[in-house]
Amino acid sequence: MPPSTYQDIVLVNGPSSSAAMNELASLPMLNPVFICVISYTATCEIPGITVAGANPLLLKFTSPADAEFLCYGHCKCINKVPVTPDGKPTPAIITRAALKLSNIPFFVVEAGSKIKPSIPHISFNVPPGKNIQSGIGLNIDDVKKAFEYGVILGRQLGRTNSTVIIGESIPGGTTTALGVLTALGIDAKNKTSSSMPKNPHDLKNQIVSQGMKNANISFGDLKGDPLRAISVLGDPMVPSVAGMVDGILNLSSNNTHVMLAGGTQMASILAVLKSMGRPLERICIGTTAYVAEDKSSNLENLIKAISTDTRIYKSDPHLVYSLYPGLRSFARGFVKEGVGAGGVSIAAMLKSEGQINGDILLKAIEQEYDTIISKTR
Amino acid sequence: MPPSTYQDIVLVNGPSSSAAMNELASLPMLNPVFICVISYTATCEIPGITVAGANPLLLKFTSPADAEFLCYGHCKCINKVPVTPDGKPTPAIITRAALKLSNIPFFVVEAGSKIKPSIPHISFNVPPGKNIQSGIGLNIDDVKKAFEYGVILGRQLGRTNSTVIIGESIPGGTTTALGVLTALGIDAKNKTSSSMPKNPHDLKNQIVSQGMKNANISFGDLKGDPLRAISVLGDPMVPSVAGMVDGILNLSSNNTHVMLAGGTQMASILAVLKSMGRPLERICIGTTAYVAEDKSSNLENLIKAISTDTRIYKSDPHLVYSLYPGLRSFARGFVKEGVGAGGVSIAAMLKSEGQINGDILLKAIEQEYDTIISKTR
Repeated sequence: MPPSTYQDIVLVNGPSSSAAMNELASLPMLNPVFICVISYTATCEIPGITVAGANPLLLKFTSPADAEFLCYGHCKCINKVPVTPDGKPTPAIITRAALKLSNIPFFVVEAGSKIKPSIPHISFNVPPGKNIQSGIGLNIDDVKKAFEYGVILGRQLGRTNSTVIIGESIPGGTTTALGVLTALGIDAKNKTSSSMPKNPHDLKNQIVSQGMKNANISFGDLKGDPLRAISVLGDPMVPSVAGMVDGILNLSSNNTHVMLAGGTQMASILAVLKSMGRPLERICIGTTAYVAEDKSSNLENLIKAISTDTRIYKSDPHLVYSLYPGLRSFARGFVKEGVGAGGVSIAAMLKSEGQINGDILLKAIEQEYDTIISKTR
Repeated sequence: MPPSTYQDIVLVNGPSSSAAMNELASLPMLNPVFICVISYTATCEIPGITVAGANPLLLKFTSPADAEFLCYGHCKCINKVPVTPDGKPTPAIITRAALKLSNIPFFVVEAGSKIKPSIPHISFNVPPGKNIQSGIGLNIDDVKKAFEYGVILGRQLGRTNSTVIIGESIPGGTTTALGVLTALGIDAKNKTSSSMPKNPHDLKNQIVSQGMKNANISFGDLKGDPLRAISVLGDPMVPSVAGMVDGILNLSSNNTHVMLAGGTQMASILAVLKSMGRPLERICIGTTAYVAEDKSSNLENLIKAISTDTRIYKSDPHLVYSLYPGLRSFARGFVKEGVGAGGVSIAAMLKSEGQINGDILLKAIEQEYDTIISKTR
């Protein structure tokens, strides 16, 4: 396929040269699979940290509701789809539209969600994360277990699938990502993304500082001990995804690629793997244009601080042109990314060899949105 | 490959003509996957019903221990591998050897196990089955849920995998299979297999008769209502596997095949699907020579009563030649099959295009056995 086939995918960190786009087009799409890791950190309960916090009682339902929505197009654990009171929907709407259009299979991994989703799901049987302000995000044994289970699952996935696209749903996850990155010596201050247009950087920095103080560590202290960095300032999603990537890439027999589908949270995965001395080839990041172009965060610089070779691709599902204000809000700095929306959109475009583009995706997303708002009425 | 490549796979129901063997050889093995469903029915607690019953307290650990053994080569929920006191091991030893040799990925589905395995596993979140003597094996809502979850999972698996091999581990499962078959009007009396050389047919028949009496039904009464047949006389494994097969085969876009890896229990799956009017093409049965040749049961006739077109293949992992009496016991009528042992052996032979045969399998099984007995010492 000529690179121009993918007009709605753009390389973020570098010129979209034909070399870069050919590299993208050569991602093996014979048998891709999407894995969505749902998780929880009590850090999200701190007022002002997440857009989902508009209704604090609903926080614990956000991730399982996303998983159920991916599966059914509606939710079971709550009687509405995760939509803010003024109609901004979960990014799972993009993911579901892209998965359906492209026929890419998916599995949900439940790793520390407070509520189990009412779908068949892969259970990692780890507890939800704690508020990292305390200086302990997750017991070290649970971090090790999540990583080990990730490796086991990754080994199985890598045997069958040509590319594994991994996304997440965890409210408050950018704050724990900031925590892990800081402990690992990556300057992520004011660079992590937010589900809100007014990024609460000061609050996030305070939370992480407080957690570090309580754990008696300073910037970069846990550079050589990434599992402890996660234990102190992270959440259960991070070791689960990092383990999975490790399991997929360390199979001697395969050539499976990994796309980390997300924004700045995925930087923490990359940092953990780098700190472990793992090779980062065959990993790329796939995200939405909304995160990649966000002025209140800086994904490109964040990734550069970890790995200069890791490509970041962004996709544009044309939500700016939507008939629905709720969907246009993505283009106005709300929600932006999550549930693997950007990466799955890219994978759908690649798998269809360009048949699926931003316009087609927009139509499918609007159909999903239309269904949920008519159900909610 | 010439059919002679597979000298340790034999067609059970018909002459091993080159047509039949070519059909076998054409099973698509680009991306096979093995699914092991672990489950429980309190029916197994009836004294004399299962070889595992030598120690009734261990019954509930049998299936999760099998799952853990597949994953690690040792168990976590019990401190020994499931082996009878005199050294007869779980058939999972065959399965693990075949999976490792062939690099076939696998996932464990936990559908009604009393104990959750300490591995990443797909959770169906259904309760364990009850003793079918009561006339209620599983609430109808749980039967429906297990079937529905099976369909959802099957749809995902069918999108990626060329052949899905499905096995089970559920103590007492041949008795519930007899129950389901009887309710569906298939004469399975004295035809189901047993993990013991002295097949307790009288006991099984009594249990099923008692259950039917308590549920106020007669032979064949639930022919048109297979989910109710499962609810009355079945276990959680049956709807889970039947749903999975339905989900895999009903994808319009694929050509995925299913191998039901097991003995007479898999007949109940076939009967349920037939009763639902589902097409049975693209389904075959893969089992061990130990079940297929068992004089105390009759897999061939049982399958013939359901579907004359469904091929049954048996594999011989040469355990009769083993140095270890525990392994030779398979050839003397103990254990015989389970955890997908026979089907996975066949898949390993096919995927390796005959590089893996009974002799190579035997060596790998003996290595596994050697490891577990030296650990147990």
